[in-house]
Amino acid sequence: MHPLRKHIEELIILTDEEFDVVLSYFEPIQKRKHQYIVQEGDLVDKEYWILDGCLKSYFVDEEGKEHILQFGMENWWITDYESFIKHTPSKISIDCIEDSELLYITFENREKLTAQMHKMERFWAKKSKFGRIALQNRILSLLKNSAKERYDVLLEQYPQLFQRVPKKLIAAYLGVSRETLSRLQS
Amino acid sequence: MHPLRKHIEELIILTDEEFDVVLSYFEPIQKRKHQYIVQEGDLVDKEYWILDGCLKSYFVDEEGKEHILQFGMENWWITDYESFIKHTPSKISIDCIEDSELLYITFENREKLTAQMHKMERFWAKKSKFGRIALQNRILSLLKNSAKERYDVLLEQYPQLFQRVPKKLIAAYLGVSRETLSRLQS
Repeated sequence: MHPLRKHIEELIILTDEEFDVVLSYFEPIQKRKHQYIVQEGDLVDKEYWILDGCLKSYFVDEEGKEHILQFGMENWWITDYESFIKHTPSKISIDCIEDSELLYITFENREKLTAQMHKMERFWAKKSKFGRIALQNRILSLLKNSAKERYDVLLEQYPQLFQRVPKKLIAAYLGVSRETLSRLQS
Repeated sequence: MHPLRKHIEELIILTDEEFDVVLSYFEPIQKRKHQYIVQEGDLVDKEYWILDGCLKSYFVDEEGKEHILQFGMENWWITDYESFIKHTPSKISIDCIEDSELLYITFENREKLTAQMHKMERFWAKKSKFGRIALQNRILSLLKNSAKERYDVLLEQYPQLFQRVPKKLIAAYLGVSRETLSRLQS
């Protein structure tokens, strides 16, 4: 079974014909480590599904410090949803931490597909709800000032991450120094 | 026109008959200042729409300090979406900053209504997308360490808030002391 179909069928069941239609709206794209899919200021008209690889969404503050909003790995969807939905310039950037294989769908095609296939409208509505919950938990973990709690939440949300991502990026996500991170891991 | 209809019709247009069906799924509830609609640990099965009043969602950390996740005023929807969607105990509390008039819909009735009326499914899907964007912006403002930037984002998002909410709550939302808040406002 195509991995995208397997992923979609965690929430809704598709016939072979329906999945062929769904897949026809997606395009594959390969990116190498350090390449971008979104740069700050872009008008983002694509949503990406990660077939293989690892990415990060982040912004750089006025002092040049990088703050990581989210990581994405296999089976995650990633884009700047504000730019994608409101057609405003992106406030964030997204780039590859590893060589990555992605499938993307344009905003226009997603609108066409959901108008044509109610099941896919339900699929994305559910995904949007789960995305909102993940962001709410990210906020709760940021508001709780303990770096230890933020570390535990990250470990729960992305168990594989610690094997795949450089420690300096994990520290940038948690908002702590590398020294503090080492202490949390010991 | 009923204020809920006016609110819904900012996104989708309903016939009189359709709005009567929608409204039949909602129940009114009145709460006084300081009363709760959600307490930490609750299984939340209602989503609330604010007809009149002002509420806050927040959690209290182990040291007893209150951290505000979001405010809600007229025309906002409020609940703990994680508990509402996943049926898990709420991690947050929601109470009234002012006497408030609310309309609520239960999870079960929202499922029935969206199954019966595709327009309302689209309405909530859009609302969920906008909620996700608001949360993403809350995260960006938390990651930017400047209290001034967090203040500016809050002022943009809730212009009326500064007239309606005690300064100590605004400070709790921004994660700053009242003294710092006074400096930001001068």
